[in-house]
Amino acid sequence: MNALFERVQTSLLRQGMMQHLGVRLEEVAPGRCVLTLPYSDKTTQQQGGFHGGAIGALADIAGGYAGLTVLPKGMEIVTVEYKINFISACQGGELRATGVVLKAGKRIVTATAEVHHIAADGQARLCALMQQTLMPVTQTYEESP
Amino acid sequence: MNALFERVQTSLLRQGMMQHLGVRLEEVAPGRCVLTLPYSDKTTQQQGGFHGGAIGALADIAGGYAGLTVLPKGMEIVTVEYKINFISACQGGELRATGVVLKAGKRIVTATAEVHHIAADGQARLCALMQQTLMPVTQTYEESP
Amino acid sequence: MNALFERVQTSLLRQGMMQHLGVRLEEVAPGRCVLTLPYSDKTTQQQGGFHGGAIGALADIAGGYAGLTVLPKGMEIVTVEYKINFISACQGGELRATGVVLKAGKRIVTATAEVHHIAADGQARLCALMQQTLMPVTQTYEESP
Amino acid sequence: MNALFERVQTSLLRQGMMQHLGVRLEEVAPGRCVLTLPYSDKTTQQQGGFHGGAIGALADIAGGYAGLTVLPKGMEIVTVEYKINFISACQGGELRATGVVLKAGKRIVTATAEVHHIAADGQARLCALMQQTLMPVTQTYEESP
Repeated sequence: MNALFERVQTSLLRQGMMQHLGVRLEEVAPGRCVLTLPYSDKTTQQQGGFHGGAIGALADIAGGYAGLTVLPKGMEIVTVEYKINFISACQGGELRATGVVLKAGKRIVTATAEVHHIAADGQARLCALMQQTLMPVTQTYEESP
Repeated sequence: MNALFERVQTSLLRQGMMQHLGVRLEEVAPGRCVLTLPYSDKTTQQQGGFHGGAIGALADIAGGYAGLTVLPKGMEIVTVEYKINFISACQGGELRATGVVLKAGKRIVTATAEVHHIAADGQARLCALMQQTLMPVTQTYEESP
Repeated sequence: MNALFERVQTSLLRQGMMQHLGVRLEEVAPGRCVLTLPYSDKTTQQQGGFHGGAIGALADIAGGYAGLTVLPKGMEIVTVEYKINFISACQGGELRATGVVLKAGKRIVTATAEVHHIAADGQARLCALMQQTLMPVTQTYEESP
Repeated sequence: MNALFERVQTSLLRQGMMQHLGVRLEEVAPGRCVLTLPYSDKTTQQQGGFHGGAIGALADIAGGYAGLTVLPKGMEIVTVEYKINFISACQGGELRATGVVLKAGKRIVTATAEVHHIAADGQARLCALMQQTLMPVTQTYEESP
């Protein structure tokens, strides 16, 4: 496990909500982060599909963690705002969100995230697209040694 | 319990994710919906505050259910997109989201939502602001008699 | 003419695009700015209505100048991003945009703007709603004495 | 000049604002449209750079015309909403906006646009990124024979 992956993983494991939903970290590279969320009754809306709230939350942290990878040690990132378009409804399988840094400014980091639905048979389909503004802040908790 | 409240409640109770998080329906009126989400370890990010994903999900359904109240029976509403600005971090207590319909067009409904944090001592503070596009669709499940 | 109005006016008069379109500064108060844009063939889209680009530009600067009013002297403001929903089409008369600061943080200012269409007979109608992220920066030009 | 190019050109020539600013149609293909805007004093903000309003307007119509290319004859497209992030300031040269359809639904078309600045020496740099919701409507004007 490389250092960048570990840095993101450490933060993700502290997110009660994401642990609860069952979000997994898949890939981390400079300016890029991939996360998955398996379908369960913790992720559904009234018609049994993935909830927009789950899709939005996954996109938000995929973009945010992509942003974290470009910051110096000791910094964290917070979401200033995001905007998400829902492209298709989906059920079962899992969601896969890929966050990418578009511009890493000193004061503002701009990122995007695509969320694909991966069906049980492996078929991928675009589910949502997000555009996001992030802001670097000083980290306020200690990482475990 | 009036009919409008019941209509929204029926849908909300079908949302696995929202039941799981502990979201409660507080008020429903034509073009308006208020929901609350108590703080728990299912709602946190890495610093122990409310997760942006929880804030976004609550805002999304507050706006969506405000939209549902202006639709004819037999119709449901889906979120086309939303955009949310996070105004302040918050921890403990509960979130209160107020969704309001801005314009109820035939094909598109535009809504906004404000999310306030209500601290244990009752102090309210603006936490996030959302702007949203909704689309009426035919309801695909039967309501219980 | 008070100092706050003059500060915004000085900046607005330097905006070639806004001078060209005929934008007028109407009101300035702390955290608030009102601008109008009269209808002309410089502002139209293909059906003769106000162009979304004109509506968006007016909303953008109304929010931005509202933000400018809360900054110390020697600072300017830039738009990080905005999102606008178009509520109704409109033609003739003028547009009136009211920008309001929602939160004035040190590093980020959050603002909103409503754009109303004012018909020739004085009737006002909501035309668009915008939500915006602004960032204070050091002013790079000299103001005339 | 192919039929798709002509269809977009016909509409663009009717846009008073875009003719005034000097916007030119460069490329049209199914689901894609490229437009340019040369720098002039009609396009500037207070520091002499391209105005966010000009950038936003160009992005809006690039996405919108990309959407138009996927609609049946006799239909037009209107912008429901868009969200734009400004990535870098730019001056001189021209702007080049590339709109792309992400999903062409029956009721809603989702598009994105990238705006690049092309300096006098030909250097291209990302200037802004937009995400947009469009809606097909019946065309209300006659095209010239």
